[in-house]
Amino acid sequence: MGKKDIIVLKFGGTSVGDINRIKKVAGRTIKSRNEGKSVVVVVSAMGDTTDRLIGLAEEITKKPSRREMDMLVSTGEQVSCSLLAIAIQEKGYESISLTGGQAGILTDQFYSNAKIINIKVDRILKELKRDRIVIVAGFQGSNLDSDITTLGRGGSDTTAVALASALKAEYCEIYTDVNGVYSTDPNMVDGAKKLESLSYDEMLELASSGAKVIHLRAVEFAKKHNVILHIRSSFNDIEGTWVMDDFKKDKRMERPMVTGVTYDIGEVKVSVFGLEDKPGIAADLFGRLAEKNINVDLIVQNVSEKNLAAISFTIKSEDMVLAKNTIDKIKNVSAEMDTNIVKVSIVGAGMQSHPGVAAKMFGILAERGINIEMISTSPIRISCVIKKSRVKEAVRVLHSGFGLEK
Amino acid sequence: MGKKDIIVLKFGGTSVGDINRIKKVAGRTIKSRNEGKSVVVVVSAMGDTTDRLIGLAEEITKKPSRREMDMLVSTGEQVSCSLLAIAIQEKGYESISLTGGQAGILTDQFYSNAKIINIKVDRILKELKRDRIVIVAGFQGSNLDSDITTLGRGGSDTTAVALASALKAEYCEIYTDVNGVYSTDPNMVDGAKKLESLSYDEMLELASSGAKVIHLRAVEFAKKHNVILHIRSSFNDIEGTWVMDDFKKDKRMERPMVTGVTYDIGEVKVSVFGLEDKPGIAADLFGRLAEKNINVDLIVQNVSEKNLAAISFTIKSEDMVLAKNTIDKIKNVSAEMDTNIVKVSIVGAGMQSHPGVAAKMFGILAERGINIEMISTSPIRISCVIKKSRVKEAVRVLHSGFGLEK
Repeated sequence: MGKKDIIVLKFGGTSVGDINRIKKVAGRTIKSRNEGKSVVVVVSAMGDTTDRLIGLAEEITKKPSRREMDMLVSTGEQVSCSLLAIAIQEKGYESISLTGGQAGILTDQFYSNAKIINIKVDRILKELKRDRIVIVAGFQGSNLDSDITTLGRGGSDTTAVALASALKAEYCEIYTDVNGVYSTDPNMVDGAKKLESLSYDEMLELASSGAKVIHLRAVEFAKKHNVILHIRSSFNDIEGTWVMDDFKKDKRMERPMVTGVTYDIGEVKVSVFGLEDKPGIAADLFGRLAEKNINVDLIVQNVSEKNLAAISFTIKSEDMVLAKNTIDKIKNVSAEMDTNIVKVSIVGAGMQSHPGVAAKMFGILAERGINIEMISTSPIRISCVIKKSRVKEAVRVLHSGFGLEK
Repeated sequence: MGKKDIIVLKFGGTSVGDINRIKKVAGRTIKSRNEGKSVVVVVSAMGDTTDRLIGLAEEITKKPSRREMDMLVSTGEQVSCSLLAIAIQEKGYESISLTGGQAGILTDQFYSNAKIINIKVDRILKELKRDRIVIVAGFQGSNLDSDITTLGRGGSDTTAVALASALKAEYCEIYTDVNGVYSTDPNMVDGAKKLESLSYDEMLELASSGAKVIHLRAVEFAKKHNVILHIRSSFNDIEGTWVMDDFKKDKRMERPMVTGVTYDIGEVKVSVFGLEDKPGIAADLFGRLAEKNINVDLIVQNVSEKNLAAISFTIKSEDMVLAKNTIDKIKNVSAEMDTNIVKVSIVGAGMQSHPGVAAKMFGILAERGINIEMISTSPIRISCVIKKSRVKEAVRVLHSGFGLEK
């Protein structure tokens, strides 16, 4: 028997939400195995298990210790992965479930937000050699003290991608409740089309702009370690969206100028008045915000009358109060918050070699009389801040204007 | 700071059945710590958690793999021990929870019914030295492959006693829903009194005769390793029943002749007819039963007419069908089952030095016209099989006849 290609499959909490769904995941997993692959599966906790466990702790205290919370919530994935192994065995195939620690996932000491330091794959490889389907509890690892840690944001996605990298897997499949990544939000635009493939940078821009099929951190990890992702539905067999930088495998002959249109309604615009127009003022302002862990997105600076500068920028809505308090502490300075804005972005790796994309975007919006309040660009993204009331119209005209319909 | 005495406390599933009870257990634990002890706590899973988890697996299959079942059900104790640690921390004391594996409990490979091979106490001692209350998940350990195992019958009791032994604890407290061990079933006899102390052998005879406050296996372990037990209520501060062989600490001046009266309604009487009366016949019969894992209790053999032997014995009710099928396979032999019987026993370590106890027991029963169908004795126990309808009367007259009332 020759050495088989390893693939990693990841199923989220909804996909393993009850026993019937777990049985379906078992079937899906066996299908991949019967296609001649060595299969490693990463699962999240069933449905709302994690919230239920957190709720139990919150009945005791608002501030439980992070170490004990990791001990507590990690049981959720342990339950779903043992049940999946049982379901696979019931269908007549060998399978074994492993906790993060048993799977060799070593993390740092930061309970509830641990980072993977290293993965010792010996155990997984041994089980694959025995022709077993290996199920790994997502979202968790263990530190040097053999204490259980959890990975925090994007946990199970990160586990899957990190395992795929450590195991040199052919690719990593992320199963979700949609058919893949779309050119824009299908709930907003009828003509939204599923994308066949994307580069990591495009996926990063789309993920950060609100396409919630996979966590940003996992995409960054995939990019860094060149792990090919396949984002697809757990409810059907339709091919999903591939994410990779390997142009030989990429089915597109050439990168399109614009791949997708996204929007983010989770930001507010902050306008700061009364700053002296002298060097170091901006650095002081943003330094104070950074100290409070407030991430600043788009920034625009204008010199206004009397040598006083006005700076506008956007932040996450949840940071609004903290930002206001922080800025109000600066002498003679005041801040105004505008929650009535939205950020609309076009994303595309082809943009870099196509000048005039920005001009075209501004033109499309201007034609409809949609006022642009702020602009920011990256090599593969152009974002405009506009009034919230115009978001649906803006996304629709940009989507058709750049020829993205089905 | 001098080295403090270590004590081990064990709380069952009912004692940690919900968050309020967990908070009470936290209080109880802190009380022991404030009495100057180094405290290790062993907990079972909350209420019906284990049954709920088993139910999930049974939705998939009637015969799940034992390894995966251990992975699954061990999460129950992990949840309760982390919640207890959080509850203790909330009251301002240091605490840490450990899985069986983290606590150093090494077992053999027999999933779902593992035996403890060794306990590496380094981690627990390290945490105690930091003045932490250490919570250990009961009922579980890990094998040499770092796979999770469960201890099977009497699990959490066994964990507690084994830890007490390995840690050279001063004693091991088993918290339960009654005030201690009684001279007989308080639900049956009004004058039943709580016993101050018992020997291990007495406790073993009482436990095997149906007093369900602690599992047989844990008592055997305690006896073998001389671990002093204190069986008490988790709902009040009343001193419970001490179990030990240390006569200097035993508060009783002299062992009483009879300590308690118990009964077991879970047995049936089997009468086997048609056996040839020649050597080896009994060995063959009981050999066949042993092969099927059927435990035989009382045995009576009578030679009947025509050189055919008749043998009667008792077995557990749940083995009835299997026993009948096994015996019917023997040529010319037939078996009759009598479910209308009960075993009544008197237990007492003092019996050994008091001749005539058996005669007194038979006399008490005869006076009431209660017919004795079978008899068996051990050095510290005399059991009689009688008709089920007379059980309450028999227990009451024996209890008063041997002067056991309050």
